[in-house]
Amino acid sequence: MATVIDPYRSRTGGQSQLRKREDPVLHGTREGSAGGTMSAEQTRHYEENGYLFLPSFFSAQELEELTTERDRLLRDPELKGRPEVIVEPGSDTTRSVFAVHQLSKTFGRLAAHPRLLDVTQHLLGSRVYIHQSRINDKPGFVGKEFNWHSDFETWHTEDGMPRMRALSCSIALTENNEFNGPLMVMPGSHHTYIACAGETPENNFLQSLRRQEVGVPDQESLTRMADQGGIVAPKGPAGSVLFFECNLMHGSNSNISPWPRSNIFLVYNSLENVLRDPFCGRQPRPEYIATRNPVAL
Amino acid sequence: MATVIDPYRSRTGGQSQLRKREDPVLHGTREGSAGGTMSAEQTRHYEENGYLFLPSFFSAQELEELTTERDRLLRDPELKGRPEVIVEPGSDTTRSVFAVHQLSKTFGRLAAHPRLLDVTQHLLGSRVYIHQSRINDKPGFVGKEFNWHSDFETWHTEDGMPRMRALSCSIALTENNEFNGPLMVMPGSHHTYIACAGETPENNFLQSLRRQEVGVPDQESLTRMADQGGIVAPKGPAGSVLFFECNLMHGSNSNISPWPRSNIFLVYNSLENVLRDPFCGRQPRPEYIATRNPVAL
Repeated sequence: MATVIDPYRSRTGGQSQLRKREDPVLHGTREGSAGGTMSAEQTRHYEENGYLFLPSFFSAQELEELTTERDRLLRDPELKGRPEVIVEPGSDTTRSVFAVHQLSKTFGRLAAHPRLLDVTQHLLGSRVYIHQSRINDKPGFVGKEFNWHSDFETWHTEDGMPRMRALSCSIALTENNEFNGPLMVMPGSHHTYIACAGETPENNFLQSLRRQEVGVPDQESLTRMADQGGIVAPKGPAGSVLFFECNLMHGSNSNISPWPRSNIFLVYNSLENVLRDPFCGRQPRPEYIATRNPVAL
Repeated sequence: MATVIDPYRSRTGGQSQLRKREDPVLHGTREGSAGGTMSAEQTRHYEENGYLFLPSFFSAQELEELTTERDRLLRDPELKGRPEVIVEPGSDTTRSVFAVHQLSKTFGRLAAHPRLLDVTQHLLGSRVYIHQSRINDKPGFVGKEFNWHSDFETWHTEDGMPRMRALSCSIALTENNEFNGPLMVMPGSHHTYIACAGETPENNFLQSLRRQEVGVPDQESLTRMADQGGIVAPKGPAGSVLFFECNLMHGSNSNISPWPRSNIFLVYNSLENVLRDPFCGRQPRPEYIATRNPVAL
């Protein structure tokens, strides 16, 4: 019997390793072709750089509805104590809420927004489902940084996502500016996969949601990627949307500005790329972080 | 006998307080007048905003000399163990060196650089001396943030600097870009003084050089200042210089980029504004942090 070799094996101890990506970036769409609401130029930009920023994607009215619903969720006493709700250490303030597309009808509708689906189906070349969703708040003065990482490295290793055929969509509920810790990406880094050093401990997510310590790329590889393709922090008003490929290297700085940064993340995965057993051999992460029951959108 | 009231009293417990600045920003120069190498427009910009950024102030040759000397100082085994040298916690790497204008002939000459003196004497309206100097390294990946503060609040309270008649000069030895933790300033904030809450502990400098915990402005005042005048992070190539007024609110973000940021700080004070006893009633900070023996430049 032929042995199936996992091209994206990671965290097998030892040294980190740079590998060429084995999957296409566009799936079933020809590079440079237009699709639905996306121009050929936008499609090409995504293929080349691994991200696409669309300022003022949502109308003021849509934005207000999303912001009101976020505020309601963050304050909802019935949600406190649920595992989806991540509370600040040493306080009662809610920082993140996972699975918001299931906890809230408004965010459920958002996940199925026709223009979001149009873009994601075009880029992933198939029908899609939500792999993960969350509210991500980075309050003024105290919001902490997220170190550089590829989402796919974690989703593959800890969740069992087989191939690179997923993307994230970050919706800005506040302005994302130079000072409030906007997402930073390394354009073109999605063409290379970094198999990370180290091993995955049991129940790693309990710790990694606060600060990632495994699945962390080595500094030499990061330096090479940044020197090659630079760093970009897409900035824009509330209502802007950033689509970025699952293997794009990204991170964000802390927010010492007085201005809060609040985003909603939706992760779309292809229905042809549903999860199998985690490649690290550990128990899968909980359903609210990585769903094993895909619902077609 | 008349009681002399200190207009800049700070850290007297209780609440923080916003006060109008009582000193002019320009001393002996008329607003908008040209002086030496500075244009009237540059002088006006400094008066209004509290800072002036001059990209590529130093030549490539001057820059190389400064960089070589910085590297030499950071590695000099004879300096290790001296109080001027601040070593990383848990490692042997030198992060900061104080009093570099005294430890090094090159930096001594730099402090007396005719073009730097021309600008500072023009802005401070008198002869000047170095109140403090240091190398400030913020290495890639790990460089930490500095929270918002006014230098003058500390220099007045802990060092006994009587009036606002000093400025800092930050010389970039590496590019300062959007991602490697450049200095951020709040334009116009130097017109207002924030008397901070809290009290000054004995030997506060031993702790405050790593992380400032007293002399920290309150979030409400900072938010008001940022909403009024915005935030600016002057960026430019190695060799650029930022002059900023001693009461300008400033801070800097952490540096998770792979690119190091390395600056030299020179603090010029007017010879008509030399230190007296610290206004907090504590022992003065050491000579290498705040000199009580001014040497005219």
